[in-house]
Amino acid sequence: MNVTLSATLAANEDIERRRHAGQRVLNLAFGEAGLPVHPALRERLADASARNGYGPVAGAPELREAAAGYWTRRGLPTDPALVVCGPGSKPLLYGLLLAIGGDVVLPVPSWVSYAAQAELAGTRSLPVAALPGEGGAPDPDRVSAAVRRARSEGRRVRALLVTLPDNPTGTLASADTVKKIAELARDLDLVIISDEIYRDLVHDPGSGFVSPAELAPERTVVTSGLSKSLALGGWRIGVARLPSAGLRDRLLAAASEIWSSPAAPVQQAAAYAYTEPAELVERVAASRRLHATLARAVHARLVRAGIRADVPRGGFYLYPDLTGHPALTGLAGSADLAARLLDGHGVGVLPGHVFGDDPRALRVRVATSLLYGETTEERLAALAAPDPLALPWIAASLGHLDEALAGLTAPRIVRRRPRTP
Amino acid sequence: MNVTLSATLAANEDIERRRHAGQRVLNLAFGEAGLPVHPALRERLADASARNGYGPVAGAPELREAAAGYWTRRGLPTDPALVVCGPGSKPLLYGLLLAIGGDVVLPVPSWVSYAAQAELAGTRSLPVAALPGEGGAPDPDRVSAAVRRARSEGRRVRALLVTLPDNPTGTLASADTVKKIAELARDLDLVIISDEIYRDLVHDPGSGFVSPAELAPERTVVTSGLSKSLALGGWRIGVARLPSAGLRDRLLAAASEIWSSPAAPVQQAAAYAYTEPAELVERVAASRRLHATLARAVHARLVRAGIRADVPRGGFYLYPDLTGHPALTGLAGSADLAARLLDGHGVGVLPGHVFGDDPRALRVRVATSLLYGETTEERLAALAAPDPLALPWIAASLGHLDEALAGLTAPRIVRRRPRTP
Repeated sequence: MNVTLSATLAANEDIERRRHAGQRVLNLAFGEAGLPVHPALRERLADASARNGYGPVAGAPELREAAAGYWTRRGLPTDPALVVCGPGSKPLLYGLLLAIGGDVVLPVPSWVSYAAQAELAGTRSLPVAALPGEGGAPDPDRVSAAVRRARSEGRRVRALLVTLPDNPTGTLASADTVKKIAELARDLDLVIISDEIYRDLVHDPGSGFVSPAELAPERTVVTSGLSKSLALGGWRIGVARLPSAGLRDRLLAAASEIWSSPAAPVQQAAAYAYTEPAELVERVAASRRLHATLARAVHARLVRAGIRADVPRGGFYLYPDLTGHPALTGLAGSADLAARLLDGHGVGVLPGHVFGDDPRALRVRVATSLLYGETTEERLAALAAPDPLALPWIAASLGHLDEALAGLTAPRIVRRRPRTP
Repeated sequence: MNVTLSATLAANEDIERRRHAGQRVLNLAFGEAGLPVHPALRERLADASARNGYGPVAGAPELREAAAGYWTRRGLPTDPALVVCGPGSKPLLYGLLLAIGGDVVLPVPSWVSYAAQAELAGTRSLPVAALPGEGGAPDPDRVSAAVRRARSEGRRVRALLVTLPDNPTGTLASADTVKKIAELARDLDLVIISDEIYRDLVHDPGSGFVSPAELAPERTVVTSGLSKSLALGGWRIGVARLPSAGLRDRLLAAASEIWSSPAAPVQQAAAYAYTEPAELVERVAASRRLHATLARAVHARLVRAGIRADVPRGGFYLYPDLTGHPALTGLAGSADLAARLLDGHGVGVLPGHVFGDDPRALRVRVATSLLYGETTEERLAALAAPDPLALPWIAASLGHLDEALAGLTAPRIVRRRPRTP
């Protein structure tokens, strides 16, 4: 086992240690949604606190029913019998790799855990670069060649993964790219795993979202959860929509031996959430607006500092590229850049190489979701504010970031050693 | 992947389906503790419902601290930094197999998930029969030969697992056996995984309990959880006590990529439980008395029906052996026996072969923990009753069992076909 502690969780623990030690560090490293639990969900959790049975491995019937409704309302008619719930979408993704078997095509860059999970599951990932501006989907024109080459070397390539919208880039693959992915998955007989955990956080909900499950329903698994849209990461609840009873049964077999079921009281609260009552729809909408506002504000600051970054389309991430920046010629790669930002400027980000990117490229992932405040009160105020950027704690954090970007990109004064006489 | 749905969870789902369809089935198949959540824990869960952060992969500091205290009070001084929490002890056991790597010596019979987990983790199990009356520990005299033989065949055998007290047999390995296991683990350089999830349910708490962690602290991992002692199976919380930072870090690496952390509100309630306040100590004691009373009552009924079974020492299981019974000569093995009990007598049990036992042997696991009642009221009454066997619903279930055992073991009337004239 060559896997190490998940880069994103490790970075967060390091930053938290520094903050407890009194350092002033802006945490732009961790993909936690940074918002409070809605009171209706707290109430549902408390109401379900007597529930201590394991329940079905696939999840409580009411949760599967509600999740099926959630997808059906999004143009994906869903049979509750083909829904599997897990303690987060992360274990579901891991169980899927075991259940599908064989290697998986991953976009580059992509979320830190996919490749590590493949290694733990005894399979391998087949990295294929994403198209510029369309993170989360491997470039369709390169997939066929990569899969055929791997297969000619005797590898069993069985799946292809997309993240819609994407982590780490914050972008969204176009409908055309998703269509091509669906077609080539059919040609190459690949299962598509579509990680749609940020789907409800596409910044412009009117912009149209195409799931490969609409185009290749016979071979697409959709995973989702409440960690991002309702900020319930720490509650650990995820859902998967399976294309067939066969794959469902293999996933359930793995699930039954690895985790049994998600926490029963959490399942009841999640069942309520997936019915999408008005109060929670409103909360998701407010969260989406806030995430979009902050992601765009940080994007504007990056651009103002002369740094390239794609316009964010969903979630709360940016993926700036400082490769070739004249002030940073001394840096060997993304690890150096992240270290300089943290040690020199008090800004925690994740280096691009942990997402499978070229370690020499000066790319980092910036998460904007921990900018909303430190306390529940601050975070609720950020959700409610007509102009969250004007809130003093958010303005201060953005000021810290401006200062860091200015310092980072300022022309370096190269100190020469005085010549020996 | 050859793994199928966990036998114990599958049997439970089958029985529940039959009951919903109106069949009268006694569920003696499922190892759920069958008791209500203590109100103090419900309150703690509700109080912690605002907690939605992922928190450290190892678990919240307060939970690790409390679990360390729990072990320290049991003669195992524990550094909270060497405690890792997970969503159940099941995922912790799975993560340990990945973290340790290599094959694992398993007692036969043993809990359904160990061997399946080894297969999912890409390792193999090395089955070694337990000593008669000492389920849960492989016969020490057979371990060395088995390990040396496997190693001579090129297998990497790295770990040995014990269950103290045992599931499925309900027995407890003697102090002498545990001592031998500790010694040979040292000789053979094996990590000992000591699954002690039923430790607090040893029926006679004064009888002495020896953990291999006392004898071989440098190489023993102890796993536990609140699923059995406090009936919180559906809350999914487990804890592991690691012998070294190296193994802890490998476990955390796997954990961070598979499940992240247990549900945050559950962690807070568990932290309270592991401080062992008087009200919960009393609840565990009452549960222990009830489990012992029912396990012994069912044992007495088995013996009365002429069926061999070891006296239960802990938990809520019995493992009767009907091999060679004159009334059952037509049965090919444990699967047939379980099927006859279910279809012919309305009693659900698990066949011995799912625990790795010889499929031809007529052994089944009987779980007695779902006899306490169907409702919270009945279960609380069972906990409080001076004589729970006299409660009408328990007496009725035991009557059903008596009837089933009598029917099962009655001399078979062999119907011959009338001779054709």
